[in-house]
Amino acid sequence: MKSLAVTTDHQLEIVEIPDPVIGEDCVLCKTISCGVCNGTDTKILHGTFKGFNTYPCLIGHEAIGEVIEVGKKVKQWKIGDHITLPYLEVGPDGKYAGYYSGWSAYSEYTVARDWQAMAELGNGPGTPGFWEGYYTQKVLPKDIDPVYGAMVNTLREVLNACKTFGFGSGQSIVIFGAGPVGLTFTTFAKLLGVKSITVTDILEEKRDEALKAGADHFINGSKEDVITEARKIYPNGADHVLDAVGINSIINTAMHIVKDFGQICVYGISPTLGMELNWADAPYNWSLKFLQFPNKVDEAAAHDQIINWVRMGVIDLKDYVSHIIPFEKILDAFAMVERKEPCKKIVIKY
Amino acid sequence: MKSLAVTTDHQLEIVEIPDPVIGEDCVLCKTISCGVCNGTDTKILHGTFKGFNTYPCLIGHEAIGEVIEVGKKVKQWKIGDHITLPYLEVGPDGKYAGYYSGWSAYSEYTVARDWQAMAELGNGPGTPGFWEGYYTQKVLPKDIDPVYGAMVNTLREVLNACKTFGFGSGQSIVIFGAGPVGLTFTTFAKLLGVKSITVTDILEEKRDEALKAGADHFINGSKEDVITEARKIYPNGADHVLDAVGINSIINTAMHIVKDFGQICVYGISPTLGMELNWADAPYNWSLKFLQFPNKVDEAAAHDQIINWVRMGVIDLKDYVSHIIPFEKILDAFAMVERKEPCKKIVIKY
Amino acid sequence: MKSLAVTTDHQLEIVEIPDPVIGEDCVLCKTISCGVCNGTDTKILHGTFKGFNTYPCLIGHEAIGEVIEVGKKVKQWKIGDHITLPYLEVGPDGKYAGYYSGWSAYSEYTVARDWQAMAELGNGPGTPGFWEGYYTQKVLPKDIDPVYGAMVNTLREVLNACKTFGFGSGQSIVIFGAGPVGLTFTTFAKLLGVKSITVTDILEEKRDEALKAGADHFINGSKEDVITEARKIYPNGADHVLDAVGINSIINTAMHIVKDFGQICVYGISPTLGMELNWADAPYNWSLKFLQFPNKVDEAAAHDQIINWVRMGVIDLKDYVSHIIPFEKILDAFAMVERKEPCKKIVIKY
Amino acid sequence: MKSLAVTTDHQLEIVEIPDPVIGEDCVLCKTISCGVCNGTDTKILHGTFKGFNTYPCLIGHEAIGEVIEVGKKVKQWKIGDHITLPYLEVGPDGKYAGYYSGWSAYSEYTVARDWQAMAELGNGPGTPGFWEGYYTQKVLPKDIDPVYGAMVNTLREVLNACKTFGFGSGQSIVIFGAGPVGLTFTTFAKLLGVKSITVTDILEEKRDEALKAGADHFINGSKEDVITEARKIYPNGADHVLDAVGINSIINTAMHIVKDFGQICVYGISPTLGMELNWADAPYNWSLKFLQFPNKVDEAAAHDQIINWVRMGVIDLKDYVSHIIPFEKILDAFAMVERKEPCKKIVIKY
Repeated sequence: MKSLAVTTDHQLEIVEIPDPVIGEDCVLCKTISCGVCNGTDTKILHGTFKGFNTYPCLIGHEAIGEVIEVGKKVKQWKIGDHITLPYLEVGPDGKYAGYYSGWSAYSEYTVARDWQAMAELGNGPGTPGFWEGYYTQKVLPKDIDPVYGAMVNTLREVLNACKTFGFGSGQSIVIFGAGPVGLTFTTFAKLLGVKSITVTDILEEKRDEALKAGADHFINGSKEDVITEARKIYPNGADHVLDAVGINSIINTAMHIVKDFGQICVYGISPTLGMELNWADAPYNWSLKFLQFPNKVDEAAAHDQIINWVRMGVIDLKDYVSHIIPFEKILDAFAMVERKEPCKKIVIKY
Repeated sequence: MKSLAVTTDHQLEIVEIPDPVIGEDCVLCKTISCGVCNGTDTKILHGTFKGFNTYPCLIGHEAIGEVIEVGKKVKQWKIGDHITLPYLEVGPDGKYAGYYSGWSAYSEYTVARDWQAMAELGNGPGTPGFWEGYYTQKVLPKDIDPVYGAMVNTLREVLNACKTFGFGSGQSIVIFGAGPVGLTFTTFAKLLGVKSITVTDILEEKRDEALKAGADHFINGSKEDVITEARKIYPNGADHVLDAVGINSIINTAMHIVKDFGQICVYGISPTLGMELNWADAPYNWSLKFLQFPNKVDEAAAHDQIINWVRMGVIDLKDYVSHIIPFEKILDAFAMVERKEPCKKIVIKY
Repeated sequence: MKSLAVTTDHQLEIVEIPDPVIGEDCVLCKTISCGVCNGTDTKILHGTFKGFNTYPCLIGHEAIGEVIEVGKKVKQWKIGDHITLPYLEVGPDGKYAGYYSGWSAYSEYTVARDWQAMAELGNGPGTPGFWEGYYTQKVLPKDIDPVYGAMVNTLREVLNACKTFGFGSGQSIVIFGAGPVGLTFTTFAKLLGVKSITVTDILEEKRDEALKAGADHFINGSKEDVITEARKIYPNGADHVLDAVGINSIINTAMHIVKDFGQICVYGISPTLGMELNWADAPYNWSLKFLQFPNKVDEAAAHDQIINWVRMGVIDLKDYVSHIIPFEKILDAFAMVERKEPCKKIVIKY
Repeated sequence: MKSLAVTTDHQLEIVEIPDPVIGEDCVLCKTISCGVCNGTDTKILHGTFKGFNTYPCLIGHEAIGEVIEVGKKVKQWKIGDHITLPYLEVGPDGKYAGYYSGWSAYSEYTVARDWQAMAELGNGPGTPGFWEGYYTQKVLPKDIDPVYGAMVNTLREVLNACKTFGFGSGQSIVIFGAGPVGLTFTTFAKLLGVKSITVTDILEEKRDEALKAGADHFINGSKEDVITEARKIYPNGADHVLDAVGINSIINTAMHIVKDFGQICVYGISPTLGMELNWADAPYNWSLKFLQFPNKVDEAAAHDQIINWVRMGVIDLKDYVSHIIPFEKILDAFAMVERKEPCKKIVIKY
């Protein structure tokens, strides 16, 4: 089968590798779609993903697969099921066909493991190697388009982040960045009952998108002083200030905006890992919370609510996807990302 | 002005009473609309409202009013604002123009009090007479129709109840009653991420409505054994069983359905106040939670989320209202309720 | 080895049964001590334990055992460790040597299973038969006397109940019953920061014990009207009313005492399972919470705090134990319980 | 009366100022005792207290006063009551007798305000100037010595911090600093059920004190590598790492010790306000929480539990106090602090 590798000299390459052979606790999936992740995928590509340093590797981690073969111990899935987040697993040498794992989900065939079947085989919760990520491999209902359905993987993460950050009734939030992630946070925070949201971005054309997504206010950071404007809206400061971009200096700005006992939330991953902070800019009591690799148990818990919202028409997956590109042209898709062309989610279709 | 009274012999009567004179901490409202509450209004009418025994009284408690006069200490409201939950307040004798208070909100003019202005006058939080209900008097944004807006008062209560009962991700709920209240609970529980909802009612025609509202399963209680069917769906029992009707025997049935450490939630108010319970039917660990008069601080906290949902198109207030009836015909509206004609919310328009 | 059986005609009998043979995931324990449980043990004896109907059976469930043999997969325990809550496990026929299980912990030898070793053998969390009770089998530190240490099993349950009921800062609690359970609740609630505790009992001699245990007030229920006196102390009602006795009529009394949005907590198990309740006596909003078989995950979570309290001198296990009786005289111990002789915990010593 | 001032050139001076005249909502207190706060007091003295820059000022904020005069609106206090946290209030010019307020509690006479009486006078919750600090002015029971009782003010703060940081069952904590604050955190965390505590300090003589206070492990930071040793004890990292000293570099060290989804808690106040952080040292998900000026509502909520612990003998206030110094010698007390002589709390007695 074909897959997408990052070489040791940080180039993308479509490679031919053997099809996966599944264990008794696994299902084999024909990959239907896989979302391109501007964050993790490109960081692995460029060698800037914190804590990751093994190349060549296979990448991709936002797939939907259709079950085409079922291991005999598996109980929760059957032939034809659409599954979220299938992967490829590595062997004892840490590799799959000579490649390290960057989750490998761009492969034409992928695998999901039934955690309950794992438990019966002695590899379940409580055993050394058990990975909670298996909890996130869940059935995508058939009435949801499995190509756009790749978006469910991302939306679960953002909803989980909203809950981990504690967004809720009566609160005020200032969100830095009106890209796809920032706007999704805007919509979800509003659905969760947040009272007032201000989005700030340096592009004026983001104003309408932000307001449409649910923002109450927009600050154009290229024309206005964000601290001054945010303080006009929230004289006592905002309950939360969210970095949905991943630029360290946002934290310094946010310290001037967050209220006493408020929280600065960092979801974006800065490519620069060190920074100078000045506590004098912040209130007496505040938190800085980094959420950069979601807890898989919590992410799994967000599945139902996203599925409910999609089925009830509260959110439309198509609103979050700008391009559907066949796997054959996946290098074009990445080229587009590299050129930083404005887009929402790109989904690779198989 | 005109208002709606319940006489000492439990008859409804449109009466003429003086217009309210407001204090410095109040706004005078021209009543725009007021929802008919099948629960409280009719119980007061029939003398079966627990703890209420003072007649004649004025009723109504789901109004929207437009501010037409502003007390000089008031800060949070201005002329033209639409306000949720205005009332009439009684004098030192506990009456308004000779009538006791059943909240009196069917009156043509009503009053809201600014709790912050109250505080500055020495009547705020911490003083003996302070009523937290003032927190629920909030601005209804102008882009929401103020006639259908009366529904916001009800929806806040139901959303608050969902949160007080603790409905959330991964849970299963069995809801007794597919009337307007039961269906609203169904939709809201689903929006809050509940995994599986079963609605049961004795009318087959409620099946489609329940499924449309978000139910995953429907049990026709007149044809099927509810306990048996519910246990098929939830072999270990349901996390929550909700009485959205107000019939004591539902609690006895629910004991057979609720799971260990589960909760029976009583939102409907039974006209019969005593009952026989048999612990043997329930699991070892369970709760019975009565929520029959919402905490006003919590109800106020639900305001933002309902407003957000309305403005984002998640819910449509028109879906919850079946009749808009002019105040002149309010007795016809109540006659309809007395005949138990199938309907959703009736809103009285002024 | 010897063990204690309840015969089919509900008699206690010391019986001779084979020693346990342990699996790879188990440790064999020499039983050191086992607390007598006036609740569960005597209910099983008399055939009134809800949901239990299989005789003859072996009883006892509050043991401490010393590890004398270690299964080869076991990691968390070693020879000589003192373990809380060892049991005997039944075979595929649901029996051990012909006896059903009432937890069987009065046996001279008992067994604990390492849940992590179970997981590696395919019987861990997520598999059908997994029992969370294994989490409660924890090491009792060597500096705690293992005879009095049997009390740790009970105290964990009560502390867990306090947390499940939500006892905490600023609250008021009325506790029915100044027996060992009621007094332990009194002390623990006070340690958890509860502001005011009133204990009521029908014996005047309990007054001093209650005050010493941490009560702020005592009501003698045989001389004073409990509702009247409790309402004098808490004019708006109490946050919690706890039945630490297990008499249905306490719930009816409690309804008059609990405040709006308060909770009636039932920890004692009434031998009579049905009762008549009158909602009219209660406030609009209230809960009735039954906790009669603790959640084992939560009970395990209480272990550390009890151990800390014992080691820091906050509580003295000896204060909770009135009799230490050798296993040979266990029938005398039960006779004493049957005669309802006033006592605290009886611990059987091996 | 006499009081303690910090002059514009940052010198301490005993000054003579007029006695306070109380309002209707206040009580006048004869100051009994006041704790010396090595943190705030000395920072104000040296001009390094974040956000404070008004001199000359009066300092002291850990007093106990005995009520000697009661304003006519006051309800919660009476003559003879011992009150926690009385202050002096400034006039409209922000001063008391020409001095700005550093809380002024070293004065011979101090004042407490009854927040409920304030509410009735129109200055309660909801009014612009209302200060939640009034909630912390509570009665110290007469059976607690009011000189040592000054310690209650401090202990409430630390207990509140433990709860705000979320210390509880099953957790592991590494505490930097075995001074009085660090040791109090150690004891309180243990009382709250924390499973394992490691204390680190650079003085070997702190080892025994730390273990006695409840620590499970001690690392001598002057002889051992703290990161290496802490990782040996907690291979996956610690749930919480607490800076109880106030040195920025502790945060950098803590990043290597905190587990994924763990929290670095900063209670000590660093005199240096800026620092360089390197995200690369931390896990993917973590929080940095600064608590440097407690929320007064929460601090008040900790009062009951501290009082309970003192009265039940769980903690002995005398263990926390090393010196009781008469007010006449208060300058000697501060000289001792300046010399950094090893000591626990110094209490000034009037």
